[in-house]
Amino acid sequence: MDALPGTLGTSASVALRLGQAIFSVTSLLFMCLDVPFYSYTAFCFLVSVMGLVMAWSLTLAMVDAFSVLIKRPVRQPGIISVVVLGDWVLSFLSLAASCSTASATDYLLRHSSPFCDGTLCTRYQLSATMAFLSWSLILASALFNLWLLAYL
Amino acid sequence: MDALPGTLGTSASVALRLGQAIFSVTSLLFMCLDVPFYSYTAFCFLVSVMGLVMAWSLTLAMVDAFSVLIKRPVRQPGIISVVVLGDWVLSFLSLAASCSTASATDYLLRHSSPFCDGTLCTRYQLSATMAFLSWSLILASALFNLWLLAYL
Repeated sequence: MDALPGTLGTSASVALRLGQAIFSVTSLLFMCLDVPFYSYTAFCFLVSVMGLVMAWSLTLAMVDAFSVLIKRPVRQPGIISVVVLGDWVLSFLSLAASCSTASATDYLLRHSSPFCDGTLCTRYQLSATMAFLSWSLILASALFNLWLLAYL
Repeated sequence: MDALPGTLGTSASVALRLGQAIFSVTSLLFMCLDVPFYSYTAFCFLVSVMGLVMAWSLTLAMVDAFSVLIKRPVRQPGIISVVVLGDWVLSFLSLAASCSTASATDYLLRHSSPFCDGTLCTRYQLSATMAFLSWSLILASALFNLWLLAYL
């Protein structure tokens, strides 16, 4: 079980974490740059959650990269439990944020709200899509690490 | 591992499944009875997902009750894999549906929409809450069964 790709301390995990960080940063950029996102609860929620995901994924990407460099994957059940718990909580939060944003954007589009001027609503949609992609990668990390934890 | 409460074919699982069915039916009743829910994508999504959850949970409650009666819990990895997969998919769908509904309701309330006349928006909120409670019970079932699957 030590070499299962995608678990903490492997190079596949570095790739997953970097993917999560990239998608969350893209989602934040689409939502925050020059957009009045604070007008809606759902958009504020997305920004908070994507900020958390970015910090979490970058930190774990560094831990993973260090583990790969010194060739000693982390196998302490305590540490893996914390990572699994964090991954699951963030996966639920990011799914919730992306669906809330998609739902609010759908409402704005349907009612031709002034908040949808120009390409604003396309940007909300792209932001929700990026958050969804970030969720799918966090879920992959969470599943790999949970599987590893069950074997330890 | 055979006696882990909450896994397929135990009396705790019957209770979890009945709880899921009750919450999903309550959510459907709040949303559907005399309410124009088909005006919004998020509300239609909630109704579809809660319908699925109701059917799934009632079916598995009957399977569990039968297993408890004949005192032979299901332990075939194939069957448990299907149940785990279904539980996970439904858990993500019900979280997504409840968050989308909550987000759309928040928008309706904030803009004093005519769709919020009387107690309508309170009913949407109650429906989203029931879907959220149903999600938490499906997640519990999914986790117990995934844990069992990892040991089989």
